[in-house]
Amino acid sequence: MANSSGTLFIISDRTGITLEHLVRTLVTQFDELRRERVVLPFLDTPVKIAAAVREIDAAGQEDGVLPVVFSSLVEEASRALLQTANARVFDIFETFLPSLSDAFGMPYVGHIGRSHGIGDPGKYDRRVAAVNFALNFDDGARLRGLGDADLILIGVSRSGKTPTCLYLAMQYAVRAANFPLTEDDFLLGKLPGPLLEYRSSLFGLTISADRLHRIREERRPGSDYASPGQCRKEIAAAEDLFQGHAIPYIDSTTVSIEELAIEIMQRVGVSRHY
Amino acid sequence: MANSSGTLFIISDRTGITLEHLVRTLVTQFDELRRERVVLPFLDTPVKIAAAVREIDAAGQEDGVLPVVFSSLVEEASRALLQTANARVFDIFETFLPSLSDAFGMPYVGHIGRSHGIGDPGKYDRRVAAVNFALNFDDGARLRGLGDADLILIGVSRSGKTPTCLYLAMQYAVRAANFPLTEDDFLLGKLPGPLLEYRSSLFGLTISADRLHRIREERRPGSDYASPGQCRKEIAAAEDLFQGHAIPYIDSTTVSIEELAIEIMQRVGVSRHY
Repeated sequence: MANSSGTLFIISDRTGITLEHLVRTLVTQFDELRRERVVLPFLDTPVKIAAAVREIDAAGQEDGVLPVVFSSLVEEASRALLQTANARVFDIFETFLPSLSDAFGMPYVGHIGRSHGIGDPGKYDRRVAAVNFALNFDDGARLRGLGDADLILIGVSRSGKTPTCLYLAMQYAVRAANFPLTEDDFLLGKLPGPLLEYRSSLFGLTISADRLHRIREERRPGSDYASPGQCRKEIAAAEDLFQGHAIPYIDSTTVSIEELAIEIMQRVGVSRHY
Repeated sequence: MANSSGTLFIISDRTGITLEHLVRTLVTQFDELRRERVVLPFLDTPVKIAAAVREIDAAGQEDGVLPVVFSSLVEEASRALLQTANARVFDIFETFLPSLSDAFGMPYVGHIGRSHGIGDPGKYDRRVAAVNFALNFDDGARLRGLGDADLILIGVSRSGKTPTCLYLAMQYAVRAANFPLTEDDFLLGKLPGPLLEYRSSLFGLTISADRLHRIREERRPGSDYASPGQCRKEIAAAEDLFQGHAIPYIDSTTVSIEELAIEIMQRVGVSRHY
């Protein structure tokens, strides 16, 4: 029996990452959409594109529904070949380049995009160096060199510091360190001593006690560490510290890593490096 | 004096990440483009959008060049407000939704996208769990539980294993471990013993001797470890191992983390989780 929901193809001569993000954003606007998504990256030869056309046509036959295809193929010949598929093709270059060319007042070229390629090796090296920095300065592991951090995330154990630092490093080459807040800090009501001289780089993470409890339970079930009371106590003390020292902070409970990263960069005034 | 190259704004009610990627891809097609890029994320109230309109108009005045604006605002009222800016506005929803609605044969809604929000908390937790997995199984740190890995990257020291594993975890919730190949393995001409039972999950990374030399020099200048001869020897031995054991591998020298990740997932047959 035909699968009446149909197939959505994402076709790229590179990774297809940009196009996947775009499609994901666009389909949020279709509540009822139940299309199977197929990503075909690295289609950089006519032979590979011809194979993709056969796959698209076969899916259309099997589904009994015209496939929808998003494409970011750059080369004219490739795009023409893809157009022979029996499908509705959305070509992002064709969609934007002519009017963008008009808006910029300059012609466009037709070579393969490098937006997710290694491009400038200096940029690539900066990202890898930032990841190594985040790993070296994870969880307060090291003090020497902490002054090189673009920012230092602080918060209680399991509030999301490490993934956020790694994301900032990986995507934006931001050198992000993180430092745990512990019982000792709370008892004294003070910031950890080593952080005092980096006040302007500090940013706090907080989280709801309920979610923290659930995260910690997975790690150490039934422990004091994971108990709702302990989670509530630590979070309240951490927020008191942030407020008392005028450290900006954000609640990570219902926010994705991407949103955290963008908001933190914006509030700390760290620019996005690429 | 007016800055004749002009400004390119990226306007979003969420992070703006998708739009940034799209713009980055599109501008690769304009070699001569020298527009300053300004990203304004989280514009989710009329007050914030009105402020953005003023900023756009001011930039146009100062540059003496009509600003170009990419927008992924979802709500009708917000989009209408943005259109009052004195600029060339590219609205990705307006661009795609009507014809996409036609292609899908269903209406579209008008609520704020969640493509980079926390969305399904289960997915978010899987990404964070995968990052923790990658950290726990970095550089052969742990054997117990290695069988849970979706894939295991192997290669010589500094061939790019760690950033690739972290990227796979962060973006695709893939549980990626990595394991170093050392002198001992090469002398014996064998795979590290603990890996033998996970043969089907192994994937090799290699790199040019010249680039490896430069990377290692930064870490330990003038060392044997970093010497061109040592780098050449290790890489040749690693590639012999990959070939001898029919382990798929990829050269990371001129490939970005994104490209590595996508190609590895495709070749190992690991699906992209979101």
